[in-house]
Amino acid sequence: MPTLNQSANHVADELALHAERYGVTVQAVGGARLIDCGVHASGGIAAGVMLTRVCLADRGTVAVVPGWLPDFPTPAVQVHTDDPVRACLASQYAGWQVKTDSYFAMGSGPMRALAAREELFSQIPGREECITAVGVLETKKLPAPEAVVAIVNKLPITAEKLTLLAAPAASLAGTIQVVARSVETALHKLHELRFDVTCIRSGYGVAPLPPVAANELAAIGRTNDAILYGGRVTLWVDTEDATIEQFGPQVPSSASRDYGAPFAEVFARYGDFYQIDPLLFSPAEVTFVNLRSGRAWTWGRLAPELLRKSFFGG
Amino acid sequence: MPTLNQSANHVADELALHAERYGVTVQAVGGARLIDCGVHASGGIAAGVMLTRVCLADRGTVAVVPGWLPDFPTPAVQVHTDDPVRACLASQYAGWQVKTDSYFAMGSGPMRALAAREELFSQIPGREECITAVGVLETKKLPAPEAVVAIVNKLPITAEKLTLLAAPAASLAGTIQVVARSVETALHKLHELRFDVTCIRSGYGVAPLPPVAANELAAIGRTNDAILYGGRVTLWVDTEDATIEQFGPQVPSSASRDYGAPFAEVFARYGDFYQIDPLLFSPAEVTFVNLRSGRAWTWGRLAPELLRKSFFGG
Amino acid sequence: MPTLNQSANHVADELALHAERYGVTVQAVGGARLIDCGVHASGGIAAGVMLTRVCLADRGTVAVVPGWLPDFPTPAVQVHTDDPVRACLASQYAGWQVKTDSYFAMGSGPMRALAAREELFSQIPGREECITAVGVLETKKLPAPEAVVAIVNKLPITAEKLTLLAAPAASLAGTIQVVARSVETALHKLHELRFDVTCIRSGYGVAPLPPVAANELAAIGRTNDAILYGGRVTLWVDTEDATIEQFGPQVPSSASRDYGAPFAEVFARYGDFYQIDPLLFSPAEVTFVNLRSGRAWTWGRLAPELLRKSFFGG
Repeated sequence: MPTLNQSANHVADELALHAERYGVTVQAVGGARLIDCGVHASGGIAAGVMLTRVCLADRGTVAVVPGWLPDFPTPAVQVHTDDPVRACLASQYAGWQVKTDSYFAMGSGPMRALAAREELFSQIPGREECITAVGVLETKKLPAPEAVVAIVNKLPITAEKLTLLAAPAASLAGTIQVVARSVETALHKLHELRFDVTCIRSGYGVAPLPPVAANELAAIGRTNDAILYGGRVTLWVDTEDATIEQFGPQVPSSASRDYGAPFAEVFARYGDFYQIDPLLFSPAEVTFVNLRSGRAWTWGRLAPELLRKSFFGG
Repeated sequence: MPTLNQSANHVADELALHAERYGVTVQAVGGARLIDCGVHASGGIAAGVMLTRVCLADRGTVAVVPGWLPDFPTPAVQVHTDDPVRACLASQYAGWQVKTDSYFAMGSGPMRALAAREELFSQIPGREECITAVGVLETKKLPAPEAVVAIVNKLPITAEKLTLLAAPAASLAGTIQVVARSVETALHKLHELRFDVTCIRSGYGVAPLPPVAANELAAIGRTNDAILYGGRVTLWVDTEDATIEQFGPQVPSSASRDYGAPFAEVFARYGDFYQIDPLLFSPAEVTFVNLRSGRAWTWGRLAPELLRKSFFGG
Repeated sequence: MPTLNQSANHVADELALHAERYGVTVQAVGGARLIDCGVHASGGIAAGVMLTRVCLADRGTVAVVPGWLPDFPTPAVQVHTDDPVRACLASQYAGWQVKTDSYFAMGSGPMRALAAREELFSQIPGREECITAVGVLETKKLPAPEAVVAIVNKLPITAEKLTLLAAPAASLAGTIQVVARSVETALHKLHELRFDVTCIRSGYGVAPLPPVAANELAAIGRTNDAILYGGRVTLWVDTEDATIEQFGPQVPSSASRDYGAPFAEVFARYGDFYQIDPLLFSPAEVTFVNLRSGRAWTWGRLAPELLRKSFFGG
């Protein structure tokens, strides 16, 4: 089986080959290949689907689907995977903060599994060796050569073997990429709660696509709301019923003290991202199917009226 | 990037290669390649999806999806594109009336962008040069050699370089092809209203698939109703909020004086297609997302009870 | 056009080539190639989609789509085909009971069309000659060499030319495979009612994906319920309206005397599968579109409250 980075690189090659068609641009920065999917490039829906496939290291399937919430006009983003820990936690999770004096981006994609410097990689499978690396930068600014150096310094490869894809959350491709995190947020919260995520065999999720916001802060508000108040996830797990009944009710966003207001309001209330209850970040509704017992449970609830307020201000 | 005609030709080649599987037949008429998708051939759902891809010059994605209207039994047709002006206006729009003494068809597809004789092409980008041409004929009759001559006379190529695909609106493939025009009708109406469509970056649309009708007139009624009363479109645009607020409310079909009855009734009332308010032809509901401001608006409303009357006569 | 078995073999080759990625294992048993999609292997959503494509001899399209029933948390399985008699009756229908002293499986897939020993094949088209054979076994146990011999004995090929795919109904891939039978159950019931199924040109169906059950009996209960109480099918036919009006009302499950309780309860009531009304096995809702007359009818009704009871026990 190809490594996560090889699989992602294959998708990136396809995107670069048809760059004009996907509305992306390809350039070299500090020796690395950089694919702009929405910073200066126009990007779009198809670029967003490809960007999401890269985030997932192509270990999942992404599709734009009709909105299923009653009276809700926008489409939705669906994702499913049979390798959820690698696809979502070892790759898609934005666990790498790329920082230099003049640059910041949330880094995701399988380069994380190659660097394997996050504590997470001592707790989950996914760490790998590979001669190429692929990363995704959620950022409003293209990385300068210094940012590429900062990334390569943490990787066992040279810049020539690195591909970076960049898009702000406030772009169409970037919005799709973030809203495709419905399953990932469920897995990440379960991991934070110390649930053994390796018993999760498959995941399915869908969340409404919010209007693209005008700036990163607003985009983070809406895309979080799409998951928190509109995300619907099913996880197929192999564990004890008692374990599911212990953890399950804590998983949906409604289990958080900060549930109930658009994310932008919650953020404004605290004024500091890190003061927000970390357990807020999960889908509105989570269904567990226990492959061992055949039982199923659903916790949480969708909140379309909150989505409407967040997306349309109404 | 391949031209619109090259992209469409590539899809036509695939359809011709697997003709039996798609339920289509391939023949030569007047030197051109003719693919029958529903006149005498049985066609079907997969042929309809391929026919739609040809109409869009493969600059968009088409899918059959579950019907999302409550208590509505039929599936729906979804389309999205990141090159909406070329895909929908320069190619998919049925702006070429193919007429001879004994023949009539509504012509669409990228051959329009090669002929570029419609006034539209002086107002939008898309005009192109290419050594092959591909057109789609909405017609109940296969074209005779004279009709091929009439087409080729307006093109800078010989018949040997032309591919035509034909299906009546009253066929399964043809019904899919027409109902896939949700985004196109929104763009075309915006253009008629003198909105600058080049600021539209991406489009998404979905509309319910009506029962295939027994004749062209009935088919035009139902497929129009599918868009007018069941079409749901999102457009991502880059313009001023004030421009959207000026044009937006006029876009959905409900802004027309002729809104409110099944299209067949409207047509019968006037007895003349060209007496019907041209501003009727647009989706039931249109959402604008302004990439510049991050604001979003929805105008119009779905009318499932009218669809039910149109589709099931009940 | 490739034969049904060739088409299915092509899908099986793809599945075997990427076995690790699909969570399946490939082994030789009695000379045949055996692909385990869920007996000991983990399988998953993507394996289930591939398994379904094999069942349909790749004469149809399968997709996982959002659940469209209000307040219903799980996704759904959609299928459509333009060759419904071959795809569904000659291949997908589980008409071959594979039995030895120590083994039992429900056999489906295009090997049935090669054996052509079922009475059905004297009534429908689809019987074929081919030098390879592909079958699908719904079973909780992998076949031993004796079971392979029992299969090959009914086929005009040697074991070396046979591919078998196996998954229990109580696995994720197996659940998808069974729930993808929405169109098939409609066709099979119509055939049982002595409707001429060759007039059915295309079929579309969707049914909710139930939680994977812990054992075969429970799995059969839930997957039947998914079709009986949640299956929504459209058939495009070319026949007389009177014929449709005669047969149509009998098609949905609600026409059966045994309609109205979860399948597991119906089964428990009789204690014998063969005492259950065979006319129960069909989708909850069936829409007929008559290509000849342009008329359309819908019979039956969805019963989400019964699905909720069956799937979540609530």
